[in-house]
Amino acid sequence: MTGIALLGAGRIGQVHAKAIAEAGATLVSVYDVMPEAAKAFADKTGATVCDSAEAAIQHPGVDGVLVATSTDTHVDLILASAEAGKAVMCEKPIAPSLAEARRCINALGEKADRVFIGFNRRFDPGHAKVNAAVLGGEIGTLEQLTLTSRDPYPPPLEYIPVSGGLFRDMMIHDFDIARWMLGEEIVKISAEGSVAVDPEIGKLDDVDTAIVSMVSESGKQIVILNSRRAVYGYDQRIEAFGAKGMLISDNPSDTSVKKFGPEHFAAPDAYATFFMDRYTVSYRREIEAFVHMIQTGEKAPVTAKDGFMASYLAEAATLSSKWGRSIELDIEGQATWGNRPS
Amino acid sequence: MTGIALLGAGRIGQVHAKAIAEAGATLVSVYDVMPEAAKAFADKTGATVCDSAEAAIQHPGVDGVLVATSTDTHVDLILASAEAGKAVMCEKPIAPSLAEARRCINALGEKADRVFIGFNRRFDPGHAKVNAAVLGGEIGTLEQLTLTSRDPYPPPLEYIPVSGGLFRDMMIHDFDIARWMLGEEIVKISAEGSVAVDPEIGKLDDVDTAIVSMVSESGKQIVILNSRRAVYGYDQRIEAFGAKGMLISDNPSDTSVKKFGPEHFAAPDAYATFFMDRYTVSYRREIEAFVHMIQTGEKAPVTAKDGFMASYLAEAATLSSKWGRSIELDIEGQATWGNRPS
Amino acid sequence: MTGIALLGAGRIGQVHAKAIAEAGATLVSVYDVMPEAAKAFADKTGATVCDSAEAAIQHPGVDGVLVATSTDTHVDLILASAEAGKAVMCEKPIAPSLAEARRCINALGEKADRVFIGFNRRFDPGHAKVNAAVLGGEIGTLEQLTLTSRDPYPPPLEYIPVSGGLFRDMMIHDFDIARWMLGEEIVKISAEGSVAVDPEIGKLDDVDTAIVSMVSESGKQIVILNSRRAVYGYDQRIEAFGAKGMLISDNPSDTSVKKFGPEHFAAPDAYATFFMDRYTVSYRREIEAFVHMIQTGEKAPVTAKDGFMASYLAEAATLSSKWGRSIELDIEGQATWGNRPS
Amino acid sequence: MTGIALLGAGRIGQVHAKAIAEAGATLVSVYDVMPEAAKAFADKTGATVCDSAEAAIQHPGVDGVLVATSTDTHVDLILASAEAGKAVMCEKPIAPSLAEARRCINALGEKADRVFIGFNRRFDPGHAKVNAAVLGGEIGTLEQLTLTSRDPYPPPLEYIPVSGGLFRDMMIHDFDIARWMLGEEIVKISAEGSVAVDPEIGKLDDVDTAIVSMVSESGKQIVILNSRRAVYGYDQRIEAFGAKGMLISDNPSDTSVKKFGPEHFAAPDAYATFFMDRYTVSYRREIEAFVHMIQTGEKAPVTAKDGFMASYLAEAATLSSKWGRSIELDIEGQATWGNRPS
Repeated sequence: MTGIALLGAGRIGQVHAKAIAEAGATLVSVYDVMPEAAKAFADKTGATVCDSAEAAIQHPGVDGVLVATSTDTHVDLILASAEAGKAVMCEKPIAPSLAEARRCINALGEKADRVFIGFNRRFDPGHAKVNAAVLGGEIGTLEQLTLTSRDPYPPPLEYIPVSGGLFRDMMIHDFDIARWMLGEEIVKISAEGSVAVDPEIGKLDDVDTAIVSMVSESGKQIVILNSRRAVYGYDQRIEAFGAKGMLISDNPSDTSVKKFGPEHFAAPDAYATFFMDRYTVSYRREIEAFVHMIQTGEKAPVTAKDGFMASYLAEAATLSSKWGRSIELDIEGQATWGNRPS
Repeated sequence: MTGIALLGAGRIGQVHAKAIAEAGATLVSVYDVMPEAAKAFADKTGATVCDSAEAAIQHPGVDGVLVATSTDTHVDLILASAEAGKAVMCEKPIAPSLAEARRCINALGEKADRVFIGFNRRFDPGHAKVNAAVLGGEIGTLEQLTLTSRDPYPPPLEYIPVSGGLFRDMMIHDFDIARWMLGEEIVKISAEGSVAVDPEIGKLDDVDTAIVSMVSESGKQIVILNSRRAVYGYDQRIEAFGAKGMLISDNPSDTSVKKFGPEHFAAPDAYATFFMDRYTVSYRREIEAFVHMIQTGEKAPVTAKDGFMASYLAEAATLSSKWGRSIELDIEGQATWGNRPS
Repeated sequence: MTGIALLGAGRIGQVHAKAIAEAGATLVSVYDVMPEAAKAFADKTGATVCDSAEAAIQHPGVDGVLVATSTDTHVDLILASAEAGKAVMCEKPIAPSLAEARRCINALGEKADRVFIGFNRRFDPGHAKVNAAVLGGEIGTLEQLTLTSRDPYPPPLEYIPVSGGLFRDMMIHDFDIARWMLGEEIVKISAEGSVAVDPEIGKLDDVDTAIVSMVSESGKQIVILNSRRAVYGYDQRIEAFGAKGMLISDNPSDTSVKKFGPEHFAAPDAYATFFMDRYTVSYRREIEAFVHMIQTGEKAPVTAKDGFMASYLAEAATLSSKWGRSIELDIEGQATWGNRPS
Repeated sequence: MTGIALLGAGRIGQVHAKAIAEAGATLVSVYDVMPEAAKAFADKTGATVCDSAEAAIQHPGVDGVLVATSTDTHVDLILASAEAGKAVMCEKPIAPSLAEARRCINALGEKADRVFIGFNRRFDPGHAKVNAAVLGGEIGTLEQLTLTSRDPYPPPLEYIPVSGGLFRDMMIHDFDIARWMLGEEIVKISAEGSVAVDPEIGKLDDVDTAIVSMVSESGKQIVILNSRRAVYGYDQRIEAFGAKGMLISDNPSDTSVKKFGPEHFAAPDAYATFFMDRYTVSYRREIEAFVHMIQTGEKAPVTAKDGFMASYLAEAATLSSKWGRSIELDIEGQATWGNRPS
C-alpha cells in the first residue's frame, strides 16, 4: 500500500488526487493553508486533514509527498519532505527564483534524485513517442529541434507580476523539453521577447511573444516559439530533425471528423482548449510514474536537477531578451550573470 | 443514488462496472452463472452476489439492470427486468434470432422504450459528431452513406458457428449506424458475401468479406463494407455525402506523431488494436447515458425497437447473400421470408 | 517523325493538339464537320485542313488517327482508320450503344489491339501508382475495391437525353477503372439509381445518384458510388483493400496550404473544379502513350476490347437499376438480355 | 510581339526558354561564353547567336534581357541592359558581394524598378497563396514567421568555396521570403551556423546547418531553419502565425496516394527531389511575370532593391554567425560592419 501526502488542495491537487486513486495508491493526509479547502478535499477522498505541512508529511503511512502549493513554498516543502526520507513530487517550477532553486539542489545533495519535478509534458504520449524515437536513434543524430508552445489566451493581468515573466513561467516547459530531447546541456542562448498580444502585458514589464535560439554542447540547434495567444487553440508541437529523418509530434484533435463544404474544406474538429484537456493523459501518467518511483525506490524521471536547469535557462533567456545579446552558459548551471556586460 | 444490477460478470461486465462508478452510480447486485466470477467481481466492487438473475434484479436499491450475459439469455432477462419495472440496458444483439427478437419487442410493448440496446458505436465522439451534423442539416439532404467496418483479425474458428454469421454478428453494428444516420428505415437490401480471409470460415458456412447496398424510404443509398481482417488495424469509418457537403468520421490514431524517412513518409502511429481501445470512450459514454436514462425516466437512446430492426436487416442480408438477389423490406419489420423465391 | 490526323477540332481535340506537340509528334491533317473550326485549328497548328475524315486519314505522313468527334461517328471512323492501317486513338465511349460497340470489335478482329480507347483516368499519376502497386502485389490479394466518382455539378439538361444515361456516360469510367484494378472480369452486377440532385433529370428518365456493387471472377467485391453533384468539388477516389494492406488514391488539392482559424480549422485549398484541371496531366500522358504506341507498334494501353467491356458493364448496370435485380455476366461480354425476366 | 535576349545558355536558361515560348514571347537573341552552347540552343529555338552579350542586348526586336550567366557577371550585364533601356530579369543573387550589389543599385537609380531579380519561390502557388492571405489581413497582424528550407543533399564540395557560404547562397531565398511576407524591413538579426552534415564543408570554412532569428521594424519575430541535407526530400515550408490565425504552406507531395500497412501507415508518396521539380510551376510563372512586366511597363515584382536587401541580410547573417553575436540593421541597408566589435 503506497501512501501519499498532498500539500495544497487546489485545482491541480484535485486532478492529482483522482490519478492517485486510479494508480492504486492512497491519499493518506492533506494540508492546505485554507483549512476549509483541505476539509472539503478530505471529505471526498478519505484523507486525514493535518494542521501543518509538517504534520501531513510525518503522518503515519506516508511514503511520498506531493507538493502542489504556491511556488514560494516549494523549496521549504521539498527540503522538509526529503529530510523526512520521503519521495517527493513537486509542481514546476522548483522555486520562484534561480537563487532559491540553487539553494534547493545544494541542500538536497544526493536526495535530489528522489525529487520529481512535475514537467508533465514529458508524459504526453505523442511527445514521449518522439523522445523515445530520437534518443533511440531512429532519426540518427539530432540536428535541429523546433518547439512551438502557444497558449490559447493570456493569463489574467494580475497573474503577470507574480508569474516571473513569460520565460520563467511559460517557456520553462520548453526548456525542459529541449534538454530531454537533446540528452545534453545548452551552452548558448539568445532570446527575443516582444509585446504583440496585449500592451498591458508590456506595461507590466513582461512580453507575450518570444523566440529563443539555443546551441547545445555538441552543436545541436534549438528554436523555441512562444505566444500567449493562439486563436485556433492550444498549440503544442515538437519537430525533431536529424541525419536520418524527421519526427513531428503534432497537435491532437478531439475527433477525426473532416468536413468538406462548398467553398473550402473545414475540419470541424478543435484542438484542445488548454492544458487541462490537452494533457489529461500526461497528468495521469506522471502520477503513475510517481507511484512507481515510490514503490521501486528508483530515481525520479525528472529530477530536482532537471528542475533547476530549466530555471537556469529561463533566467538566462530573461536576461538575453532584456540585454539584446546572446549569453554563453556552463553546463553545470554555475554561472551567475551580473549587470549587462558592456 | 442510482443502483444498478449487473447480470453477467465477464469482461464486458467489468468494463461497465468501472464506468458505472465513474458515472456516479452504484453497482448494487451481481449475478453470474459461474458463482466464483460473481464473487470475485463483488469483492472488487462491493456489490452483493445473488443466487439468481431474478434475485439480482429484485435486490433492494436496484433501479436499472445491465444485461451482459450470453446472447441466448437476453430476451428472458430483458423481459424479467422490464416486468420488474427496471430500466434495462442489454448488450447487442437483442436476441439470437429474429424470431426471438420479435417475441421480445412484442412482449415488451410500450416498455420497449426503456430498454437500451448497447450499440456502443453511437457513442463514439467522432461518429456522434457526424450524426449530429447530418441530422442537424449541415450537409443538406443525405444522399449516399458509406460505412466501412473491418476487424483487425477474425475471431477464433470455434466462435463462427455460434456467431450467427458475419451479417448478424458483425455487420449488425453497421445496420444500426445506418438507421441512426438516416433517420428513416431501409426498404431494399442487397448483400454479397465471400470467403477471402480464411477458407475454414467458408467450411463453417459463413463469409468473412461482405458488401451490402441498401435503399431507404426516401431513396437514400447506403453501402456497407465489412471484412474480418484489416492488417493495418481496426478500421471503422463513416462517410456521409449530402446535397451541401460531405462529412467523414475517420479512424483516430493513438497519437499525432508523424515520421519522415529517407524512402517514404511513415506515420508510426497505429490505429486502435480492436474495439476495446477504439471504443473505450464510447463504452463509458453509453453507461453515462444509461445512468442518465434511469435518473430522468427518459426514453432509451437506442431502444429495443432499434435492436430489433438491426436484427431484421441482418436477417435480410444473410438471406440476400445466400439467395443471390435483393430483398424488399417493409419499414415495420413485419415481413417474413420463406424459401428462396423462384 | 510521327504524323497524326485529328478528326474533330472541338475542345478536347485542342487539348490533345497541344499534347501532341509536347510529345514531339506532328499534327499533319485535321477534319471537322464545321469547316471553320478545322480552318481555325489548322491556322494555329500548321495542320492541313481536309474535306473529309477519309482524306484526313489518308493524308501523306499520317501514322495515327485521333478520333475526337461525336460518339455516333466513332465506330465508322475507328474502322476506316484501322482499315487504312493506322494506329487509332478514340475518345470514350467506343460507341453509342452496346450493339454498335459489339459490331466494332467484331469488325476489328485482331486490329482491336491497335485501337486505344481514351479512358484517361488510367493515366492519372495517383491512380496509376495505386494500380501498379495493386497489380504488383503490394497489398496482397485484392479483396474490396471502392470507387467514388462525383461530378461538381450536373451537365446541362439538354445533354441528358443524348448521354445514354448516368451508367453509360459517367460510370463507364469507373467500370474501366474496376477492370484495370482487378486484372479480371466482372461476373455479377447490381445497380441502384435514384434522383436526388435534380427532379428534371428524373423526368428525362435518367438518374443522378447511383451505387453499383459487383463481384469479379475470383470473388473480389467492388463498390462504385456516383453522383452528378458534389458541392466541395470534383471527387475522384480509389480505395483498394487487400490481404496485406490498403491503398487510397485521394483527391489532390491545388496547393498544400492549411489554415487554422479561431472556430475551426479550414483548408483554404480547393479540389479540382472538374476533369479538365483534375486530369490535365492524364490527358498529356495518354497522348504520350499514343505516340509511343505508334512509334513502337505495341498494343494499345487500353484496347477496343476494354472499351467494349466497359460499355457492356454500363449496359448491364442500366438494366439492373431499371429491373431492380442483380444480373449475372459472362466474362466475354457475349450475353444479351432481353426483357425483364419474370 | 515581345522579344527577349538570353544571356547564358546553361540549364536554367533552357528552362526559361521553354517558359518564354509558353508565355507567348519570342527568344530573339542568345549569347553564351561557350559559342557551341549558344549555337546548340539557337538551333532548337530559332534565336540568333550573338558574339557578345552587348550584341545580344542590342539585337533588333529585343525588349527584355534575361541574365542567366555566372554570378560574377550579373552586375555588368544588368547595368548594360538597363542602360540600353531594356527590362531586365536576373537570376539571384544580384551580385557576388554586398559591395557589388550596392554598386549595382546605386548605378541603376530609378531603373532599379525595372530589374526583376529571380527569387522564384515567390511564384510558388502555395507560398503565394499564404503571402496574399497574410498581406490581405486574413490572420490579422503577423506575429511570428517560421521558414524552413532544407535541401535534399549538399552541393558538390568544389562548389562550396565559390558559393559565398550557406547564408549568401542558400538562405538568401529565405531572407527574400521573409521581407516579402513581412511587408517591412528587418532591424535585428542573430545567426548560428554549425557543421552537422559533412566535416569537409567545415574545413572549407562554411556551415551546413543554420538557424537565424530576426526582428522586424514593428517587432515581428522571424525564425529561419536551414540544412544542406534532409533525407526525406526537399523541405520548403512557411508558417505564418498571426493575431487571428495561422497559415502553413506545407510541402506538396507528388500524388495523393496513401498506404496503410501491417505495422504502420506509410505514405508512399515522395516530396520533390529538388528545386527543379518542386518549383517547376514557379519558374514558369516568374517568366510569365517578366513577360507581363515588359508588356505593361510595370515595376518588377521583385526589384533590384529586393535583391540588394536579401544580400544585405545574408551578409549580416554571415557575420553574426562568425562573431557569435546579434547585429542591428538599418532599414535602408546602408550600414557597413568593420571588424568584430569588442
